[in-house]
Amino acid sequence: MTIPFDKLKQTLKAVLDSRDFAEESSELIANLFSESSLDGYHSHGVNRFAEFIKNVDKGVINPRALPQKEQSFGAIERWDGHRGAGPSNAWICMDRAMALARKYTIGCLALRNTNHWMRGGSYGWQAAEGNCMAICFTNTMPNMPPWGGTTPTTGNNPLIMAVPRKDGHVVMDISLSQFSYGKLWQHKLQEKPLPFPGGYDADGNLTTDPAEIIATRRILQTGYWKGSGLSVMIDLLASLLSAGQTTADIGKEEAETGLSQVFLCFDQEQLNSSDDHQDMVNRVIEHFTGSVPENGKSVHYPGEQTRARRQQALQNGIEVADEIWEKVVGL
Amino acid sequence: MTIPFDKLKQTLKAVLDSRDFAEESSELIANLFSESSLDGYHSHGVNRFAEFIKNVDKGVINPRALPQKEQSFGAIERWDGHRGAGPSNAWICMDRAMALARKYTIGCLALRNTNHWMRGGSYGWQAAEGNCMAICFTNTMPNMPPWGGTTPTTGNNPLIMAVPRKDGHVVMDISLSQFSYGKLWQHKLQEKPLPFPGGYDADGNLTTDPAEIIATRRILQTGYWKGSGLSVMIDLLASLLSAGQTTADIGKEEAETGLSQVFLCFDQEQLNSSDDHQDMVNRVIEHFTGSVPENGKSVHYPGEQTRARRQQALQNGIEVADEIWEKVVGL
Repeated sequence: MTIPFDKLKQTLKAVLDSRDFAEESSELIANLFSESSLDGYHSHGVNRFAEFIKNVDKGVINPRALPQKEQSFGAIERWDGHRGAGPSNAWICMDRAMALARKYTIGCLALRNTNHWMRGGSYGWQAAEGNCMAICFTNTMPNMPPWGGTTPTTGNNPLIMAVPRKDGHVVMDISLSQFSYGKLWQHKLQEKPLPFPGGYDADGNLTTDPAEIIATRRILQTGYWKGSGLSVMIDLLASLLSAGQTTADIGKEEAETGLSQVFLCFDQEQLNSSDDHQDMVNRVIEHFTGSVPENGKSVHYPGEQTRARRQQALQNGIEVADEIWEKVVGL
Repeated sequence: MTIPFDKLKQTLKAVLDSRDFAEESSELIANLFSESSLDGYHSHGVNRFAEFIKNVDKGVINPRALPQKEQSFGAIERWDGHRGAGPSNAWICMDRAMALARKYTIGCLALRNTNHWMRGGSYGWQAAEGNCMAICFTNTMPNMPPWGGTTPTTGNNPLIMAVPRKDGHVVMDISLSQFSYGKLWQHKLQEKPLPFPGGYDADGNLTTDPAEIIATRRILQTGYWKGSGLSVMIDLLASLLSAGQTTADIGKEEAETGLSQVFLCFDQEQLNSSDDHQDMVNRVIEHFTGSVPENGKSVHYPGEQTRARRQQALQNGIEVADEIWEKVVGL
């Protein structure tokens, strides 16, 4: 079925309000889940909402908790998320990192004791909307083997970078496994092979068969040894900067909770005039997308397709599977 | 032949001194090239030295130029490299970023108008030795196609992250093509296929044949679309923060020059006690490397093998190909 953005958001907000969230939190969380679906990221949008509420009901997520500043070092601050909702914690902390950047040109906020932020790209778009360049990342539970290993002892630790641009922000949102488990399940249900090897089969060979990979739990790192190295560095930086839990620590929790995240911002306006900034960004994007495309393909800058999907869904509404909608309405 | 570190460094320094480098610069540059070979990275060490000198003789690298501060925003500064030597420019700027981090907990230096820094990992080790956590990156000339494109309109933009650790620093040094051209040439000369697809053949299919990839110039991005996105973000951040040249701009130069780089540091001592820091890092590393290894493989943390090679080469000397040594001595 097709649902307009406002209706989706109101419906999610009503569920959140029934779970004792503060008014400001439920507004923020409903908006972030709805925007993820608006942008086509259902797996971190409406499709994930029932699991989010389950985690509230189980006590993994504390609906009354708000993030608080613990330590200030000027341009860098440490906050504690008190195991509140991941999306609102992350949004509030990115907002604060932007305020620090406006004051110091550079601003960094390290957050510990938070929960899954859902779609990391949300906070990249938030920064770009506020005229900040941003880098943010999170650790996760152990869900990916390191290079050369067979058991998951590192995380797929998402990494987001964002640059504001008048004609469409440039926002990259990647995780460090080549494919997410969500993508593996989607391909398995559709009985389709992955476009590229995404992990190992039971014999230790790389495979494009999603079912084999789900069975071995040996998902492939982005770029083999490179994504493996990047994941351990992100875990180290996130936990050391926030004085929070490492992926190893999170693995000892009963659920994926107590995550560490970093939000780093640069204030565009202090660094370059608006005209210079736009000119440089456009120069990069025009050159990048100007590559002669492969047959039948096209070259997109990061965020371009997200923006197109958003514009379309704002006009036509958001496609939501009937069974998902029924589940959400019944929460 | 086998050459002790000190002899290698003195030999390189004598060549640099003959090219009008300031005493401090030639000492720094000779040390950085020699350390890269010591650590086993010959392609950015002694093997690259003749080309570096050629670029000095051609005027691409100005031996008298030193990097200078252009703008200060407190914890973040902008410097101009005046097209001096890339390695000494980068070393001086990382040193300054570390000083900023000691003052502000976080420190960032953005450098424009510099030359190739050779081995990016050098500056990660430098930061870790100085008890700083660091992220640094550089743009390059256009040498890699974007995802979906066939002509090189982005760079393989190296990304380095470092965390200090008593029993061996954790240092990641990756570039955003799955394999470097150096690696392709090495495999081609040895008539060996790549271990994984590293680019496209003339028919547009992924291939492990290095000769085919060298012919098409379609090297593969690290993690396909992910490395493509990361490369354009790094180009944007490097050029916007430094107000320097973009990869597109560098492509208009007659040689690869006028690069933009960023050095970001966090002071370990202000963020965590030494004991807490070591404990957290060791927890991450022990968990990471504790993955059950694949048959016949082992799991290494980033920097582990570099450190082992260094310790061995300090004892046994550095293996240098005879023809390379003759060329260097004759410069």
